[in-house]
Order: sequence, then C-alpha cells, then structure tokens
Amino acid sequence: MSLLKETISSITASDKEAIERASKHIDNLTKPIGSLGRLEQIGARYAGITGKVFNRVNKRNIIVMCSDNGICEEGVSAADQIITEVMTNGIPEMKTGVGVLAAFANAELTVVDIGVKGDITNPKVINRKIMRGTSNICKGPAMSRENAVRAIETGIEITDKLCHEGYDLFGTGEMGIGNTSTSAAIIAALLEIDVDELVGMGVGLTKEQFENKKRVLKKALEINNPNPKDVIDVLSKVGGFDIAGMCGCFLSAAKNKRAIVIDGVISCAAALCTYMLKPECKDYMFTSHKSDEKAVNYVFKYMELEPILHLNMRLGEGSGCPLAFNVIEAALYVVNNMATFGDIGIGEESKDKLIDIREEKTK
Amino acid sequence: MSLLKETISSITASDKEAIERASKHIDNLTKPIGSLGRLEQIGARYAGITGKVFNRVNKRNIIVMCSDNGICEEGVSAADQIITEVMTNGIPEMKTGVGVLAAFANAELTVVDIGVKGDITNPKVINRKIMRGTSNICKGPAMSRENAVRAIETGIEITDKLCHEGYDLFGTGEMGIGNTSTSAAIIAALLEIDVDELVGMGVGLTKEQFENKKRVLKKALEINNPNPKDVIDVLSKVGGFDIAGMCGCFLSAAKNKRAIVIDGVISCAAALCTYMLKPECKDYMFTSHKSDEKAVNYVFKYMELEPILHLNMRLGEGSGCPLAFNVIEAALYVVNNMATFGDIGIGEESKDKLIDIREEKTK
Repeated sequence: MSLLKETISSITASDKEAIERASKHIDNLTKPIGSLGRLEQIGARYAGITGKVFNRVNKRNIIVMCSDNGICEEGVSAADQIITEVMTNGIPEMKTGVGVLAAFANAELTVVDIGVKGDITNPKVINRKIMRGTSNICKGPAMSRENAVRAIETGIEITDKLCHEGYDLFGTGEMGIGNTSTSAAIIAALLEIDVDELVGMGVGLTKEQFENKKRVLKKALEINNPNPKDVIDVLSKVGGFDIAGMCGCFLSAAKNKRAIVIDGVISCAAALCTYMLKPECKDYMFTSHKSDEKAVNYVFKYMELEPILHLNMRLGEGSGCPLAFNVIEAALYVVNNMATFGDIGIGEESKDKLIDIREEKTK
Repeated sequence: MSLLKETISSITASDKEAIERASKHIDNLTKPIGSLGRLEQIGARYAGITGKVFNRVNKRNIIVMCSDNGICEEGVSAADQIITEVMTNGIPEMKTGVGVLAAFANAELTVVDIGVKGDITNPKVINRKIMRGTSNICKGPAMSRENAVRAIETGIEITDKLCHEGYDLFGTGEMGIGNTSTSAAIIAALLEIDVDELVGMGVGLTKEQFENKKRVLKKALEINNPNPKDVIDVLSKVGGFDIAGMCGCFLSAAKNKRAIVIDGVISCAAALCTYMLKPECKDYMFTSHKSDEKAVNYVFKYMELEPILHLNMRLGEGSGCPLAFNVIEAALYVVNNMATFGDIGIGEESKDKLIDIREEKTK
C-alpha cells in the first residue's frame, strides 16, 4: 500500500473521551463555565489530540513548502518568479517575517524545496524538488497525478520525521509566486464556487491585472475540468507542489496525533484538500488569523473554522503560526495551572453560587 | 494643583515623529508594505510612546482594581457580594484566570483593594480602601465627587510608582460584583445612549433578571442625572471605585509614556472616561480582545478601537491583557529583528519589484 493510502487509512478522530475529561476539568476551574472562551475549547481539543488532559508543548516547527507555478506565464503576478528562489534561500536565516516571529515563539523552521524553478544554494533548505515548477495550468494540468501523490507523500515523510524527532506543534507555511492563484483555483474547484466570487482585488493588482487573473483562473478550470470529488485530481490539475506538500503535513500531523496550525489562504487550500481526503484530520487543526483573501471565507465557512487572531496579516510564509502557537500554549498553561474550586476549598453547592455570580459579573 | 489636574495637564500626545521614523523602518523590512497588518501598526505606535524606533519590554504589570458596588442591593447580581472579597484575596496567588495567564506571559500582578466591602486578609493586596463599597446608585450617587477624584488619584499614584520601578507595559483588570452594571451606566451616560441598547442578556441572567438590570440602570441614571460633559460627575454618580481607579492607571500610563492594555467591558468604561478627560491618552492604549458585552461595541466605535484577539473571553480580571502583551511584544520583536531590504542587498529599484511581486503573492 502506498504511503498516502496507508496514512489516510491509519488516521482516526481525536480522543473524544479525553476531550470530555478535559472539559470536565476546565469546567471545574475557578471561573464561570465557558468564560475563557476559545482558550477552553483549545485546551479541550488539544487533550483530544494527545489523549491526556494535561499537556505542554515540547518542540514547535513551522514547515515552509517552497515551489514555483507555471501559471506565472500568464501574468497573474507582476514580476519574475525569481523571488521564490530568493526567498527560499533567505527564509532559513530567520530574518524574514516567519523566521522572526518563529524565533519570538521559540519555534524552528523546516524549509523545503519541493519544486522551486531555480537552484537552491542554502544548505539549510531540504532538497525534495519534484520538478522545476509546475506546468502552466492554462494549457493543461499542473503536474501528473503521480507527482501530486509524490508531493503529498513528501509532506508526509518530512512531517513524520519531525514527529519522530519530538516536534509536537506544527505550523504550515509556503513560498511560491503565483500560489494565491492556484489556491483560489483549488478552492473554486473543490467547493464548486465561481471564480468571480473567490478572487480578491489584491493590493498590488491593477483593475486589468485583476480581470486577467480571473480570466486565467476560469480558463484553467475550463481546460482542466478537475473532478471536485477527487482531491488528487484537483491538486494535480490546478494545484501546486507547495499546496500538495502542505496537505501531506496535515495528513501526517493527524496520523501522528500532533496539533497543526492553518495559516493564510494557501494553507487554507491545503487544509481543505486534507479535510476532503479525510474529515477526521480537522480534529488536529487549529486556526491562526484569517487572511483578507476572499477565498478563505469559503473555506472557513465550509470547514466551520474561526480565526483566533485579528491582525489583518497577509504576508504568508506561515507567519501567523507563531502567534497562534502562543495562544495555544496559553490555553494549555491555563488547563495545567489554574486552580479548581476544590483547590480553593469551595464545594459543589457554593461553587454553583460562585459561578452564577461571576457569570453575571463578567459579562 | 491636585495630582489629577497636574497629571491631566502634563499628558501630551505620543511622538508622531518617532512613529514616522518607525513606519519608515517597517516599510523597509523584507515584506510587502502593510503585509504584517496590525503588527506593523503596533510597532509604530509603540515607537510613538517611547520616542524610539527599537523597543523591548522590560517589565509587565497588570493592575487589578477591586471594589464593591452598592447596586448589588437591587439584585443585578444573583448572589452575595462576598465573592469580591474572596477573589480579591485569591487573585495575588496567581491561580485564577488573570494570574495564570500573567505567569504565562511573564507579567506580575498588582492587586489593589480600592473599596472592597469586607476585610482583605491577603498581605499581597495593596490596601487603598476608600470606602466599604459604593452606595446604591438607585438611591443616589455612588460616591462623593471628592472620593471619585481620590479613587482616580489612587490609580495614578499606584501606576506612577510602578513606572518608577521600571514597569513599562501595563494591563488593566478588576474584580467587583456588579461592575458590569456600573460600566454600562457609565457608558450609557457618557455616550448618551439608551440603556436598552447597552445591556446584554448575560449568561447567568434569566429574562426577569435581565429586565430588572435594565430597569435598575434606567432608574440609577434618572435619579442621578449625571452630566455627560463632566466625567468626574458621571464616575461619582453611577460609577465605582474600581473604574475610577483604572481611569487613574490609564492617565498615569499616558503621563509616564508607557503602553497600557484595555481588557473587558469594565476596562473599556475606564478607558472611555480617560479618553474623555484627555483624548491624547488613547495614544498609549492597546486593545486585547473584545468582550461579548454589547456596551463594548459603542466604546470601540466611539474611540475607533479594534480588538487584536478573537477568543470570546468574558472572564474579566484583566485576563485578556497577558495575551495582548504577547502580540505587542511580537510586534516589537519584528521591528527589532526582521531584515531590511538593505540587509539582504536589495536596492531601491529591485525592492519595488520585489514588493510588487510579493504583494501579489501574499494576497
């Protein structure tokens, strides 16, 4: 059996019994029930992932998948693809957005060349180049079905190895000029939504470039006619190596029962692919912020996700992940360290009274 | 001149020239302009506070103002005021919500008894008790004008001392059964909004209790008829010692040019009072999350604030502040550590090209 099939078949939902035990503990902390809002949900969901009520993060890692997209030929980006190469070489130095924020959150980066067009010279980048960029999806499929599977399996292998090394909180990042276009194409194809509804104006795009981007994506979807019921078909026809690789990261995290954070629109597209391959994977996913890119709204709605940060970020690279790590770890810290009513000597009867009062108070 | 008058007259706006220098530096970091969203704004605004482009936080402190409210006689809370006393004694032990999250963010707490009804036995609580709770605002003013000024000055004195001790990032918290009612009354009075628009259903309140709360607040505003143009009048007639004390914290932070975080609805009411006393104080304020309490929406709109976290928290105590500290410090870390285009050897011309491309890419 292939690694992909094996991975998908071995993924199970998170441990609902552990979530229940954690929720019970959280409800017994010295506060009105639910008053720590999503911190409580995060704490309980994390318990479901590990099977334990009390958790702490050991090592954090943000996996940055880098690759080029043939669609750039169509002028969906204003400039040269060389930037993918420049940034892929630069990201491991920890001085770009994701690197600086990762250092702040004590997280490491794993930068992967999964399909950059140019040669990557930084030895800190893991060389798993499948091809020198995808083909132009306006003229045919981005890659073969075999290569789509290989890209997903690359993500699985890399994340499996990191799990084996003890990393237990993951982020998903990317670098690849043109990948907001491929993300929009994937989301449009999988959710069967018209491209006009999905593509945003962008900051750098003129009215003409925007119209061109929509036209190009429509053409790509027409020509390739991906099957919305077949995720691999969609990924191979209108996707990219980066998105397929990130899909592999999400699958591996679920298989290994580790938490993984969704970041911007490209990460969202990969999360959607993963969810459609195996819905149970959602149990292992946490959100960070919500990109301003319109396509993200559809994914958040479809997967019933909500952002935890409100920062209008749109840098990509996985730069929202470290901030989400901090909130997740704050949630675990609360579960581990906050006093229970028992701790402060308040019994069941008085506890209910206290909760009533504090519920009123804290609104 | 009184401490309050002296403080207000010595507050100046933040350093706009430093904000401009910081913005220029931030625009030159290796990312599309604006792509780190509100992290960029936070970094620039912080520069305005200190007058320096590069900043790091030295010591964090969350000031928790604790006091009782006479309005509890009217049954706006379902139970006994004793909880204010219990929690005031308990908070310094760092095991309640704000304490645990403060420990996570390496922040200290300053817990102040500014008007708790009962005796506070924990020596870690600073005793600045003005009275044993306010009077019932349904029957007359909460406190005398002199005591309102005294409460504000208590907040100023305590924060001045902490500034002197080197604390440079503050949070505002509170404990006081009934203080969502007094907060709603203050916001209704100052913004001249009908109480029906402001008061939320709460979690613990039945339909009857909710109707009662609205009735009580309407009566309190009718009987006291506070002057919306006179913040001290509003604070003394329908406020509380906690809110007045927090207002003093905001004033002192602005005077001492330190950053201070607004938390829940009670903190919002105090921030609004401060802003109306001296609009320049807003330059020193940062938001955390946005409470679900309806009244908060009016303050956010009036002061043009936006939350940075999206966590549906409603615990109070200042518990949102430590999470906001983390985001603020991440923003400062970005300003201090991210590479500029110059650092990576990209000149003005190529920089514009890079920005164009990455703007497209990151949307």
